[in-house]
Amino acid sequence: MSNRILHKGLKAKVMTAEEAAAMIPNGAILGMSGFTGAGYPKAVPIALAKRAIEERMRGKPFKVQALTGASTGPELDQAMGLTEAISFRFPYQGDAVLREKINAGIVEYQDMHLSHAGSLVRYGYYGKMDYAIIEVTKIREDGSLVFSSSVGANTAYFDVAEKYILEVNEWQDERLEGMHDVYGVTGRHGERTPIPIVKADDRIGSPYLKIDVNKVAAVVVTNNADRNAPFKAPAEVHMKIAGHILDFFDAEVKAGRMPKSLLPLQSGVGNIANAVLVGLNQGPFENMTSYTEVIQDGMLDLLDSGKLKVASATAFSVSPDGQVRFNKNIERYRKQIILRPQDVSNHPEVIRRIGCIAMNGFVEADIYGHVNSTHIAGKGIENGIGGSADFARNAAYTIFMSPATAKDGKISAIVPFASHIDHTEHDTMGIVTEYGFADLRGKSPKQRAKEIIEKAAAPEYRPLLWDYFKRAYAHPSAGRQSPHIFEEAFGFHTRYLKTGDMRPKG
Amino acid sequence: MSNRILHKGLKAKVMTAEEAAAMIPNGAILGMSGFTGAGYPKAVPIALAKRAIEERMRGKPFKVQALTGASTGPELDQAMGLTEAISFRFPYQGDAVLREKINAGIVEYQDMHLSHAGSLVRYGYYGKMDYAIIEVTKIREDGSLVFSSSVGANTAYFDVAEKYILEVNEWQDERLEGMHDVYGVTGRHGERTPIPIVKADDRIGSPYLKIDVNKVAAVVVTNNADRNAPFKAPAEVHMKIAGHILDFFDAEVKAGRMPKSLLPLQSGVGNIANAVLVGLNQGPFENMTSYTEVIQDGMLDLLDSGKLKVASATAFSVSPDGQVRFNKNIERYRKQIILRPQDVSNHPEVIRRIGCIAMNGFVEADIYGHVNSTHIAGKGIENGIGGSADFARNAAYTIFMSPATAKDGKISAIVPFASHIDHTEHDTMGIVTEYGFADLRGKSPKQRAKEIIEKAAAPEYRPLLWDYFKRAYAHPSAGRQSPHIFEEAFGFHTRYLKTGDMRPKG
Repeated sequence: MSNRILHKGLKAKVMTAEEAAAMIPNGAILGMSGFTGAGYPKAVPIALAKRAIEERMRGKPFKVQALTGASTGPELDQAMGLTEAISFRFPYQGDAVLREKINAGIVEYQDMHLSHAGSLVRYGYYGKMDYAIIEVTKIREDGSLVFSSSVGANTAYFDVAEKYILEVNEWQDERLEGMHDVYGVTGRHGERTPIPIVKADDRIGSPYLKIDVNKVAAVVVTNNADRNAPFKAPAEVHMKIAGHILDFFDAEVKAGRMPKSLLPLQSGVGNIANAVLVGLNQGPFENMTSYTEVIQDGMLDLLDSGKLKVASATAFSVSPDGQVRFNKNIERYRKQIILRPQDVSNHPEVIRRIGCIAMNGFVEADIYGHVNSTHIAGKGIENGIGGSADFARNAAYTIFMSPATAKDGKISAIVPFASHIDHTEHDTMGIVTEYGFADLRGKSPKQRAKEIIEKAAAPEYRPLLWDYFKRAYAHPSAGRQSPHIFEEAFGFHTRYLKTGDMRPKG
Repeated sequence: MSNRILHKGLKAKVMTAEEAAAMIPNGAILGMSGFTGAGYPKAVPIALAKRAIEERMRGKPFKVQALTGASTGPELDQAMGLTEAISFRFPYQGDAVLREKINAGIVEYQDMHLSHAGSLVRYGYYGKMDYAIIEVTKIREDGSLVFSSSVGANTAYFDVAEKYILEVNEWQDERLEGMHDVYGVTGRHGERTPIPIVKADDRIGSPYLKIDVNKVAAVVVTNNADRNAPFKAPAEVHMKIAGHILDFFDAEVKAGRMPKSLLPLQSGVGNIANAVLVGLNQGPFENMTSYTEVIQDGMLDLLDSGKLKVASATAFSVSPDGQVRFNKNIERYRKQIILRPQDVSNHPEVIRRIGCIAMNGFVEADIYGHVNSTHIAGKGIENGIGGSADFARNAAYTIFMSPATAKDGKISAIVPFASHIDHTEHDTMGIVTEYGFADLRGKSPKQRAKEIIEKAAAPEYRPLLWDYFKRAYAHPSAGRQSPHIFEEAFGFHTRYLKTGDMRPKG
């Protein structure tokens, strides 16, 4: 018996993952923990995946609706995707196998702002939730919970689910206790009050979540590692992008618009985000803070060097190596790291108030500054919008970053018209590539086009983009606010789909 | 001498509009009052328009950057547009003449969320503001101001401008005093605190704005009416759209998701918004509240009937007839109406907290629920995004409404790919036309396509839309999350531009 289950009544609910999974009916609506490869349930989803096979062998359907915080690890999205045990997925995913099922039309997927997920579920728009399946580090004597390496949408799912299944993961370090700041955004309008965060390190809730223990249908003990990607040292192209962003920060500080400690940092995961954090660790800024979604390796570096005072997020996304370092220094980190529910970490109210610097990757941006974060032409959806728009719409600085080309120059990240739009011209302030920082602040679409083509597009694509813009501007049927030639707006994309290259031949 | 100027020092600053306009240099950055046809300066802008002619006759350029709350009346945007006295316009406009200059490429226009306008200006992204030119009802003994029929971005412009020009408009009813709730959102991050509004009728500020009287360069006395459009009784098509929305409200109340008093109403201006308000006045809902941008005639009807308890907004947009009624009952209305700065009326923090019902018009929506609010293919920009996204992104219910066709069926409001995107699939919950209410909540893009085509598209366009969707879904190069055929995505638009009809011939 695990010594992580201190509540007597819940000790009696311990069973295997298979026994727990057997309780879940076909068609069930499940709210699961998990945000990046952290804190998701690791045993019951595999049992559900296997059950889907068994039921199918008996000629019976077995599919559930899978709601989570954000992405999860292979034990959930890959296993359940593989056996087609998921009929509907919400609000974010990032698994290669599940993505294939989505793009094949087998799984329905609603891609949603992460700050909205809990609210929308609380409104009841996804039906009556049957089970919340939540990973925890520990169950305390009074039945209250110590969450694990992510908080995500857990509070919302506990609020609305009929029954709970708890996975107590002994792999999670017990010293996570005290790192969480559980604050519930109530579901009823007219009863909501201001979220009293005015600085990134304000704690406003409890380290624990009290639950109705009578709703617990099962407790499953696991001992499985979180699964996040290994850290990759940033390549030269990523360091160049980071360099432009750091130069921009310098200039903003010199202009008196930003303090030397900058503003609370938000950054996505991945190579460019890491490069920015590496750059910040070598740079002149001190006493920085972070109010973001995920804590990646670069954030730990900044905490270690003392440049970053606090990191507020809803989940970890650290490499296996980073995990070792994290566990080693966890006592110190606990004073500097706060894990909040995603409807607090990503809440427009707080982001707008404290004025984050939002830095997120993009798939493509068009010449007027509309940004595609999710879809790849000819392939389908990649991951999802995640929290990028929660931050982008409300931050003091909204920066999107990507290499200017992909596939050896065959694909341009700057196009005449984005093939899917997740962030509009009204929400984008900076488009950054290795070639430069296109500063869109205070500019009309036409002025943006010049800035984006000259600063951010790859030089080999500039003549093509200028040619499109100039002909669109001169076109008799185009209004000149955001001129387009609709026959050619997706010309880059259609050429790529035909020839494998966005550039014309010869 | 006007008896509306009670401060002695400012009495000495009274001059003509021409004298005030003469102080403004070429290239000046001006922050002006005005939101819809209400509360904008009416004399100095005309003087500036005339000065632009005089300067041009002398071979000298005269252009200024014109920042306002939102749209204004003809004395500002039309007069200054006509003489090309505006080089750059922000954050919204709605004048036919100015629009023509924008779409001809003569005036640069940045179209921006209205809640962001003040913040962006405070960050300094538009340069050093030379003059704030603000209409007021009265200047009090201590130099504090009684605003007029809109508040808009006035507080931001007073914060950042070097000098002020005040227009005291004697046409505005003095009994507006007490109706404003002036609360400043500070410009410095790290100093911002929660906005303490938890109900639509919470007053959190002062009825007056205290200003530094030493910055006042001129006081100009005017006596000119606001200019808002006459009220038009809703046509049958608008009443049908309203009917679907009211049925939706009924169902939500029955489902227990909304109280009988509904949630705070936000609605744009225009025929459909009026029709919804007319419908609400005949409907079963009582004790309603409104937290919105503008108060139009229909809101006054609801206040008169007692169905609406309070209307919070940043401006009036009442017809000339409505104005007569308003002035007649102003003592009563003053207890029920609150005029706030637009960075409070439109603030995501408050909208998300109190959970508005956002109802805004649209130009076109695509089959996956992306919405174009601003651009007309082949023509250019119409007005701008206004506050629609402030509400749409953060409301409890986000509804976009439009007749399903325009120009006798030649234009469909539902298209395969919207020719400009202002609201993404992540932000739209309901697309409503006279044919029905497409309920997009909890649906994947594919599920949305079915709902939008079957419920909202005009029947004559349904086969065309289905044909596109089905071929896109089957297309080998299309991912099936949001399938498109990029060669044909704007097929409706290109056909319309060639033949004057989105439908194929024969």
